[in-house]
Amino acid sequence: MERKADVVIVGAGLAGLKAATELEAKGRSVVVLEARDRVGGRMKPGEIAGEVIDRGGQWVGPTQKLLLAEAAKLGVETYAQYDKGEQVLWYQGTRRAYKGDIPKLPLLSLLELDRVVKRWDREMVTLPAEAPWTAPQAEDWDSQTLETWIKRNIRTSGARTFARIVTRAVFCAEPAQMSYLFFLEYLRSGHGVEDLIGVKDGAQEAKFKGGAHSIARRLAESLKTPVVLDAPVRAIRQDDEGVTIRSDKGDYRAAHVVIAVPPVLAARIHYDVALPAKRDGLFQRMPMGSVIKVHVAYKEPFWRRAGLSGQAASDHHAFNVVFDQTPEDERVGILVGFIDGDHVVEMSARGDNARRQSVISALTDYFGPKAAEPIDYVDQDWTAEEWSRGCYVAHMAPGVMTRYGDVIREPVGRLHWAGTETATDWMGYMDGALQSGIRAAKEIAERK
Amino acid sequence: MERKADVVIVGAGLAGLKAATELEAKGRSVVVLEARDRVGGRMKPGEIAGEVIDRGGQWVGPTQKLLLAEAAKLGVETYAQYDKGEQVLWYQGTRRAYKGDIPKLPLLSLLELDRVVKRWDREMVTLPAEAPWTAPQAEDWDSQTLETWIKRNIRTSGARTFARIVTRAVFCAEPAQMSYLFFLEYLRSGHGVEDLIGVKDGAQEAKFKGGAHSIARRLAESLKTPVVLDAPVRAIRQDDEGVTIRSDKGDYRAAHVVIAVPPVLAARIHYDVALPAKRDGLFQRMPMGSVIKVHVAYKEPFWRRAGLSGQAASDHHAFNVVFDQTPEDERVGILVGFIDGDHVVEMSARGDNARRQSVISALTDYFGPKAAEPIDYVDQDWTAEEWSRGCYVAHMAPGVMTRYGDVIREPVGRLHWAGTETATDWMGYMDGALQSGIRAAKEIAERK
Repeated sequence: MERKADVVIVGAGLAGLKAATELEAKGRSVVVLEARDRVGGRMKPGEIAGEVIDRGGQWVGPTQKLLLAEAAKLGVETYAQYDKGEQVLWYQGTRRAYKGDIPKLPLLSLLELDRVVKRWDREMVTLPAEAPWTAPQAEDWDSQTLETWIKRNIRTSGARTFARIVTRAVFCAEPAQMSYLFFLEYLRSGHGVEDLIGVKDGAQEAKFKGGAHSIARRLAESLKTPVVLDAPVRAIRQDDEGVTIRSDKGDYRAAHVVIAVPPVLAARIHYDVALPAKRDGLFQRMPMGSVIKVHVAYKEPFWRRAGLSGQAASDHHAFNVVFDQTPEDERVGILVGFIDGDHVVEMSARGDNARRQSVISALTDYFGPKAAEPIDYVDQDWTAEEWSRGCYVAHMAPGVMTRYGDVIREPVGRLHWAGTETATDWMGYMDGALQSGIRAAKEIAERK
Repeated sequence: MERKADVVIVGAGLAGLKAATELEAKGRSVVVLEARDRVGGRMKPGEIAGEVIDRGGQWVGPTQKLLLAEAAKLGVETYAQYDKGEQVLWYQGTRRAYKGDIPKLPLLSLLELDRVVKRWDREMVTLPAEAPWTAPQAEDWDSQTLETWIKRNIRTSGARTFARIVTRAVFCAEPAQMSYLFFLEYLRSGHGVEDLIGVKDGAQEAKFKGGAHSIARRLAESLKTPVVLDAPVRAIRQDDEGVTIRSDKGDYRAAHVVIAVPPVLAARIHYDVALPAKRDGLFQRMPMGSVIKVHVAYKEPFWRRAGLSGQAASDHHAFNVVFDQTPEDERVGILVGFIDGDHVVEMSARGDNARRQSVISALTDYFGPKAAEPIDYVDQDWTAEEWSRGCYVAHMAPGVMTRYGDVIREPVGRLHWAGTETATDWMGYMDGALQSGIRAAKEIAERK
């Protein structure tokens, strides 16, 4: 039995759910098919020490207006990321605590860092928002890795280290794996490196009460037709009259389809007719970042008592970016952070016991011996998640954006593409996912 | 109804067929499942002007001993690639004809080229054959693109151009898309750049009578159990006792599986349990090269009469590498060549009429006005082939080989990996495909 809808949406992450909401509002019948047993995609609920947490995306910044508006509409409130006290930087084997936004690095490194960030700010604005591959220097920037750029343009060890830490934290990939053009485009779409990594006024300014994942859940609940769970889409067949979508929960027939899953998963659907070579070539060249998100709970937020913010970064530890995730009533203390980039490849295979040891050891270096006594531990290896195969986002190696980038939002017949990778503002973020869902819905609504 | 075999092999290219042959010789029952309606994979028969041709792999060199032995055993004879007369190099807008192996470039460029090739020869031998990622300079070489290396280490325009032409011709990819470490490993596995691009004593020394594809066909015919065609494998489920393979021609049950398809296609099979993160991560990072193979037939090999070998290369034309493919009786004249790398992305979308015009126009530049009067034209766009999705071979961007390379031949439970991408000698070639099939069969035979 083939069920019918005007539009079938593949993937109940934020992009797919938003596209569905928009299309329903325009009077279309919509079915959302989701491979997992839950909605939310890269947003995922969890629990530690009795507290609700986000095992996936969680923060929101002041310029992520689509996400803030969506949360407000759905009645999901925000609260500030804890940001008081000193931050910790582990650099060249020693722990350095400091106040404010300027990391405790040698003066020459700081001066160079300032110059580098200003240069990135200047260069990123030369990229046209919808077509960065047409920038005057696109070809040159896309022919080198970010690592090559760092080695050639940054001289001080401190500034180099900082650039690499930032890359791992923001992209969950190594500077050696990324095109410098793609790096700049990501910076542009995220309003610059200071916004991307910042707390106050930055992308980590606030969090959602009850968890960011509740935005996805509430969006799903507001749909007229419930999301079909446990329904991985295996094949999509287009003909002159419409599209047939084969899922583990049966076949669907629609006039149009929105594919709102990461590129690597979109590539693994069987298309008949086969995708155009350029679209397939793009899919072959957008691997996901690598990240394990970790929460650790303590009896109390002992670092706050010691005048520390709970924020840490390191040039050495696998668990190399940390924030405070303590609930507002301080019933328990919670730290949240990431193992990212290269460290993940090893840590994913070693299992969660080894990871736990490595994480606790890092936290002890950052915050002292009390960090060795957690009351709970939860980690989430996104590279092992079959229906994400990495996080936060796909990246592009050199020579990809200039060759394949221009088809990233181009429909293929009746197929339209969504997902945060296709966003032009806050690509890789929940805000970008919403933008992509709105855009894909608009494309379909405006079709002749 | 589930059919049984000791081993199921996915893919009836040369690697899969060789693995099947070896396993049958060891007394195992084998079923080979092939997605296409033919065997041979990236070897494919064709016809132009009544002559049999290879639309895929065709040449063999003197150090490709596995391939030569296989052909001899199957009774497929070789004959020499035509190599008499002058070669044509189109360089900076002019046509240059020359004799011998040394392209007609400015003297300084030639001297530099000689130095560059010697340096590559020195550097490639520092890579351990089975583990190039452990080479002393692996990290540095893998952090940069070949394009970065070219710009930094080659000064003359002639030598730079030559390096880029070679990359496109050998890898069907752009220097900007490739890790310098991967480039060196490919050179090592192909016995150096002179072997890779050479005719006499090189990888283009000889061809197979009746076509290289007849080797695959005869191998298939020699199997006890006929290859199952039109049987794309959709899903593979492992459990404690064995493996269930779901194909469009029904389900199979086996003790072990050899997956002998390109990485990009292996990634698109659904695995239950899901592949380990590192294996999946590798699959996300091995895109295929881009190439369109073109044959053009003429009433006679008019270029031979003009003292030309039929060989041409160009820094400008889309159709930028050409060889003579005339049958030995000279009944007609045939040229064979390639559109590769960036040119393919555009040419694939433009269709075969536009391609034909572009090809004929290039041939006229190389060989004069007689090239404008072909009697037949056949092209093969490998990027549009659903069951290859590119040719000749996958490549690695920077930061991949050092991070993911060490699992390329590592079995996953009962799954073993073959295909020319997994070879350590003549990777990317038919010879490497045979090596990989032999190795995979040996792994299974030696399992406890």
